[in-house]
Amino acid sequence: MMQARKPIPVCEAVEKVMLHAQPGKIELVNFSDVGGRRLAEPLIATNQVPTFDKSPYDGFAFKASDTKDASKENPICFEVMERIGAGELPTITLESGQATRIMTGAMIPEGADCVAMLEVCKDFQENGKQYMEMKRRMEAGQNIMTAGSELDEGAILAEKGAYVNPGVEALLATFGYNEVKVAKKPLVAIIATGTELLDIDEPLQPGKIRNSNGYMVGAQAKRAGADCKYYGKLQDELESSYKMIEQAFHETDMVITTGGVSVGDFDLMPEIYKRLGAEVLFNKIGMRPGSVTTVAVKDGKFLFGLSGNPSACYVGFELFARPIIQKALFNNSCYHIKAKAVLKEDFPKPNPFTRFVRSNIEYGPDGLEVHLAGLDKSNAVSSLGNTNALMVLPGGTRGFKVGDLVQVLLLEETRGQAEFQI
Amino acid sequence: MMQARKPIPVCEAVEKVMLHAQPGKIELVNFSDVGGRRLAEPLIATNQVPTFDKSPYDGFAFKASDTKDASKENPICFEVMERIGAGELPTITLESGQATRIMTGAMIPEGADCVAMLEVCKDFQENGKQYMEMKRRMEAGQNIMTAGSELDEGAILAEKGAYVNPGVEALLATFGYNEVKVAKKPLVAIIATGTELLDIDEPLQPGKIRNSNGYMVGAQAKRAGADCKYYGKLQDELESSYKMIEQAFHETDMVITTGGVSVGDFDLMPEIYKRLGAEVLFNKIGMRPGSVTTVAVKDGKFLFGLSGNPSACYVGFELFARPIIQKALFNNSCYHIKAKAVLKEDFPKPNPFTRFVRSNIEYGPDGLEVHLAGLDKSNAVSSLGNTNALMVLPGGTRGFKVGDLVQVLLLEETRGQAEFQI
Repeated sequence: MMQARKPIPVCEAVEKVMLHAQPGKIELVNFSDVGGRRLAEPLIATNQVPTFDKSPYDGFAFKASDTKDASKENPICFEVMERIGAGELPTITLESGQATRIMTGAMIPEGADCVAMLEVCKDFQENGKQYMEMKRRMEAGQNIMTAGSELDEGAILAEKGAYVNPGVEALLATFGYNEVKVAKKPLVAIIATGTELLDIDEPLQPGKIRNSNGYMVGAQAKRAGADCKYYGKLQDELESSYKMIEQAFHETDMVITTGGVSVGDFDLMPEIYKRLGAEVLFNKIGMRPGSVTTVAVKDGKFLFGLSGNPSACYVGFELFARPIIQKALFNNSCYHIKAKAVLKEDFPKPNPFTRFVRSNIEYGPDGLEVHLAGLDKSNAVSSLGNTNALMVLPGGTRGFKVGDLVQVLLLEETRGQAEFQI
Repeated sequence: MMQARKPIPVCEAVEKVMLHAQPGKIELVNFSDVGGRRLAEPLIATNQVPTFDKSPYDGFAFKASDTKDASKENPICFEVMERIGAGELPTITLESGQATRIMTGAMIPEGADCVAMLEVCKDFQENGKQYMEMKRRMEAGQNIMTAGSELDEGAILAEKGAYVNPGVEALLATFGYNEVKVAKKPLVAIIATGTELLDIDEPLQPGKIRNSNGYMVGAQAKRAGADCKYYGKLQDELESSYKMIEQAFHETDMVITTGGVSVGDFDLMPEIYKRLGAEVLFNKIGMRPGSVTTVAVKDGKFLFGLSGNPSACYVGFELFARPIIQKALFNNSCYHIKAKAVLKEDFPKPNPFTRFVRSNIEYGPDGLEVHLAGLDKSNAVSSLGNTNALMVLPGGTRGFKVGDLVQVLLLEETRGQAEFQI
């Protein structure tokens, strides 16, 4: 069973995986379900904005030329012809000496070319008629939002692959996208392997632990924008494991297994890939944790064989499975954003290989700061709750000190970057 | 209808609102639904980790003292008594000269006090028995993860109010939290007011616009962790508006209206608060946009009267409604994280009042950078899709230039800060 595996550099591993990335499928969802999805086509303004000349203020509309001689000493008086609220239509074309009382958002009446704010006008009644008096000179066009001044019809407001945040929802509503074409969420099969695994609702037994990796990776897949189907946990037994994985492969868009990829007597994944006829892209990477991460492809579908160690599993998902999911969601900026941060704790361990340390970034007075999220052992689950970034320490370095500038990958951003750089 | 309103400073407005903040209710959810929720009690380790002495590697377990004379020239030979996979239990107590083949994660057998990695051992068969030979001296305790070495029983792994990210899910699974106490999502009533509003599926009509604010604020409320109930849109008519808002007030945990809070003839909200008997905390704030934002309270329940201008509405929600929702979710770090960023575009407008500019932060080579998200007019919806931060420009400043250091509030973080500072 002992195999000689040749580790490849992380960047090469990512590159090998991404060569097989596929765009996903499109589905039409009701507007009410669009939040948090990604657009399958650009969001285009279906009309100009505003669609009509409108008033940005409460006030009076009239001809600016009527006020050319207006001053404190020479107030100009207008007869108020009608009152228009937002959503109402003016019925009177204004002549010189006439004004229309107008509310914020209402349409400018024919004949008017400016709006004076309510605060600078004085209105009064006389002989059953409404009048308004003002003492300032107005310019033609003043306080008028002209049709199309904000947006042209056809303007692209969000790109294909854009994440639907509250602002994008507002735009979709504005332009009447009652149904929206979005990327279909890829369905990810989650399978944990290992005879030692108990279900979450089982009491502990000697020698056993509860399955946490499966649920963790499922949560990561959901954070990445996918749907999950849990296939439970597999005993370390070849026939039944093969059958379950084959079934999952056919029923879903990609299969993620945790455990069973190492070189132990019970690590069955290599044999399972072989039987499936899947091409193993690599089975060893020059990185810590997660060096035994394996990725295989068959018929354009991925099988991610993540380590059974919680942190290695976590890192393996974020580096290899997440960008594949993002690509399926039409997001070309499919990699985690890389940022520079100041290290706030010593990290004395040497790094023979590129190391990804579960970390916690904060926004300090002098910029981004990075703290170790907790215990840095590849089997430590306790540090993961606090993790919102991976600190990247290059291979061949001898440890880092407080104050050192390091690279971090940000795990909770909805945006990303188009290049994988570490 | 013209009222003299006295603007209060933003910080004072936030303070007034937060005096009425209430913790929320608790609900028990199945583990499968816990992602993205907030914990209603601390996450406590229900057992030590590991629960038993285990092997971190594939290899052989034996007594370290057997190797005290081991060297290249003097290999030590062990009889291999049994093979234990992860999840299996050892059956043999090892004596001197005996070893157990052990897999990663498996329990250390009685009598053994170290594990040699597979790679440094040589196994062979002789006369139907299994043997293993090694040439290195081992220390007692070497390569053994002792029970409790990672975590003590009772350790607090996440605080009350913590956001359930994939790492927290892993911890919940590890400790058997099949059901989890989380904060119940507050139910927010969303009501858009204005005769000019069309539904998303209606064709445009002269003088009218589609309701985008209601959906935008609903999406913001969901991003903040609430559930929404849409009560549709109201005509600018007092009786029917009052009835709908009163109904919403009784059916939900808080009411958010958009529009109708200004001083126009059709701005009905002031009258509605009066009829409801709600205490208006303020109705004018020294900020742009959103100066007419109104917040009222009755029986400990909030009514947020946001502006009808999209951007003013957006800012008003994030400053006043979001921290109230976060508090109801037991998150004491209920305010947006504040960070410093380098301005990447000129912003020449003077700021008589504190200004919140819809912005887009990026992680540049020299740290956080902030770009204007687009048009900065309070009625501009088109800039919102690109918004992930609010840039805070203090009142009394005369404009800002590329390269200036400014404060930003981050809108897409799951974490926050405990103090409102701008």
